[in-house]
Amino acid sequence: MSPPSITNVIITPVAFADPPLLNAVGVHEPFALRSIIEVETSDGVTGLSESYGDARHVERLDRVGVALRGLDVFSTTRMLEVTAVTLGGAVGADGHGLTGQISAAGTVLRTFSAFEVAALDVQGKLLGRPVCDLLGGAVRDRVPFSAYLFYKWGSHPGAAPDRYGEVLSVEAIVEQARAMLSTYGFGAIKLKGGVLSPGEEIDAVLALRDAFPLIPLRLDPNTAWSVATSIDVARRLEGGLEYLEDPTPGLVGMAEVAREAPMPLATNMCVVGFEDLAPAVSLGSAAVILSDHHYWGGLRKVCDLAAVCDTFDLGLSMHSNSHLGISLAAMTHVAAAVPNLTYALDTHWPWKDEDVIEAGALVFRDGAVAVPTAPGLGVELDRDALARLHERYRTCGLTERNDTRYRQSIDPAYDGHLPRW
Amino acid sequence: MSPPSITNVIITPVAFADPPLLNAVGVHEPFALRSIIEVETSDGVTGLSESYGDARHVERLDRVGVALRGLDVFSTTRMLEVTAVTLGGAVGADGHGLTGQISAAGTVLRTFSAFEVAALDVQGKLLGRPVCDLLGGAVRDRVPFSAYLFYKWGSHPGAAPDRYGEVLSVEAIVEQARAMLSTYGFGAIKLKGGVLSPGEEIDAVLALRDAFPLIPLRLDPNTAWSVATSIDVARRLEGGLEYLEDPTPGLVGMAEVAREAPMPLATNMCVVGFEDLAPAVSLGSAAVILSDHHYWGGLRKVCDLAAVCDTFDLGLSMHSNSHLGISLAAMTHVAAAVPNLTYALDTHWPWKDEDVIEAGALVFRDGAVAVPTAPGLGVELDRDALARLHERYRTCGLTERNDTRYRQSIDPAYDGHLPRW
Repeated sequence: MSPPSITNVIITPVAFADPPLLNAVGVHEPFALRSIIEVETSDGVTGLSESYGDARHVERLDRVGVALRGLDVFSTTRMLEVTAVTLGGAVGADGHGLTGQISAAGTVLRTFSAFEVAALDVQGKLLGRPVCDLLGGAVRDRVPFSAYLFYKWGSHPGAAPDRYGEVLSVEAIVEQARAMLSTYGFGAIKLKGGVLSPGEEIDAVLALRDAFPLIPLRLDPNTAWSVATSIDVARRLEGGLEYLEDPTPGLVGMAEVAREAPMPLATNMCVVGFEDLAPAVSLGSAAVILSDHHYWGGLRKVCDLAAVCDTFDLGLSMHSNSHLGISLAAMTHVAAAVPNLTYALDTHWPWKDEDVIEAGALVFRDGAVAVPTAPGLGVELDRDALARLHERYRTCGLTERNDTRYRQSIDPAYDGHLPRW
Repeated sequence: MSPPSITNVIITPVAFADPPLLNAVGVHEPFALRSIIEVETSDGVTGLSESYGDARHVERLDRVGVALRGLDVFSTTRMLEVTAVTLGGAVGADGHGLTGQISAAGTVLRTFSAFEVAALDVQGKLLGRPVCDLLGGAVRDRVPFSAYLFYKWGSHPGAAPDRYGEVLSVEAIVEQARAMLSTYGFGAIKLKGGVLSPGEEIDAVLALRDAFPLIPLRLDPNTAWSVATSIDVARRLEGGLEYLEDPTPGLVGMAEVAREAPMPLATNMCVVGFEDLAPAVSLGSAAVILSDHHYWGGLRKVCDLAAVCDTFDLGLSMHSNSHLGISLAAMTHVAAAVPNLTYALDTHWPWKDEDVIEAGALVFRDGAVAVPTAPGLGVELDRDALARLHERYRTCGLTERNDTRYRQSIDPAYDGHLPRW
């Protein structure tokens, strides 16, 4: 029997409506961009995946997709080699607009990831087994996620008010949490910070703690603070946070904060690749690493990261960008299979109204998603929705994410440089 | 479709003839003990594995085998959980007689490993794919092994001379190397040291270097030396060794040697579990870790170890005990799938004349074994041979390995304590 090889790859960029969520470098644009990857094989089975949607990333996906034709869909290691050779050391943007340029190795891994997930989807479908079974099997049947609170404007400029309303006060953020927990049942809360002053965000965390005394809280200012400010905020929030995420930039600055902070520090900004782990361990920069298969290099690389974290007594959680259902399925499968992924995962899921997958495969109940048991990722494309969101991509005018530029287009005095406080 | 579950487990201890190979703690007994594991599933597919054969380990395998019945053969993580619960913190011996007692966690992992490999064999057979494809696919089609030289007696006491002859001199060890390279084509040489005085073993390495100037050499005295002796030997062998393996006991002693030695240090004695890696990295105890799926906890755990090594800039090689063909197949599959396993693997293969597998699946050519492409591990049991070696186990009188006791039975004055020099 000849091995199932890749015969064709289809990359479909899509855009979906995104509310004006505020963060440390600006505000979410009216549309979030993603790419949908279909990997067709000689066995007639097609694998799905979802990745970043900025134009340069899509171009890389297209280029690598052609180069992968003919490869055995079980040899993901060979697929990685071909990805690296095809990209030839090209350096790309980070795809989520927060950490700037990424290394050549990082560019390879975030391109490869899209195909690795699709290959695992094919493998699972061929075998009749869910993807988590290709990673050692599920250690949990349900994967808990965290509520992801955002300060936000009431509408994109010129648009009608969105259904989420303006959230720029302590009272409004508590109300947002209440609504999100009521709808999804989340058992953990993350507040995207770095937007209001540190004092206002401290007040928000304290109000959330008062409102939800049994729910673990996290605060993520995306390196908006200096080391001194970070230490001050950390001390004032003693006992109030499960972890403090990326208060300040860089491995060294984070280590300075970590030495003084009473709670663990988490990061998805100073540790974004395997090459960052040894210095982070040596310096003590963070106690919790936020994984993300989209840029760590796929689901097996997240398992690798989990092994490193377990070995070096680091906690493991999961980062999220704005995403659709295929990514949620992939996140759920790998989180099901990794024993030491013990924190509730981040997800932007509540902030969107549309998707490219058939509804029903992924349902939040009590803040968790049941691990799909169907073969592969367990999700199917809704072709009409895919066509609609692709048409949106074609016409929306966005080709990359740039929260700072968008905010400056509304508020020319806005300065996106960090740390701000 | 209900998942393929484990219906029965058969553990068959076997004994095969082993020459009187000398090491730092004594001499190999006349028979090496192994266990052959068959995992039967509800799909009618049986998976194979091979593990240690000492009686206490076999008892643990029997006990865990019963407890695994009914489990999904794809959920190896659940199988690990059940193994841990079943053994309930029991502490065992190391199974190869060199490092003494092992931890409860180590006992769990070396018991689980036997079943993980068999489960992967089942998975591969169900899928029609070689085991390496369940680990990301082969990055190499052939896996190189190393010649494994031993000082040895000419025969076990009271027995006829064996076909390998006495090897206790520089000339004889060079002759052994020449014969082994001629037969197998190995491109690397490891000398088991700690047997003769350090000066004699230095002379042996220098003679091997003169005889085979292009072949990388390794020396493994199994912690027979003090720190001072280790540093002295290392300096005198500058430029002569690919790595020096376990010259002295303990993470701290190894680090002291590593600071002064001109070549990398390797270990399979001070780093034998994930809990040893953080202190080893912190202290700088070794530059190369020798993996071994039998005690690291299976093939996926070796992949985990490889990720840690890659992340922390450690080299990765592979350790061997006396073993049969099922273990060789498992070693070959995982080595094929791990990109950073760049050293030729250890194997005792040339020192045995019999096996439990059908001949032909694993052939050495130019020092390497072609990765099997048949489903699963790619080896099949020879039932007659299995019955013969099991009968040998029943009648040989050995129930555990103890090289020191055996040597003392011949030479009552022998003192097995280390370090000796």
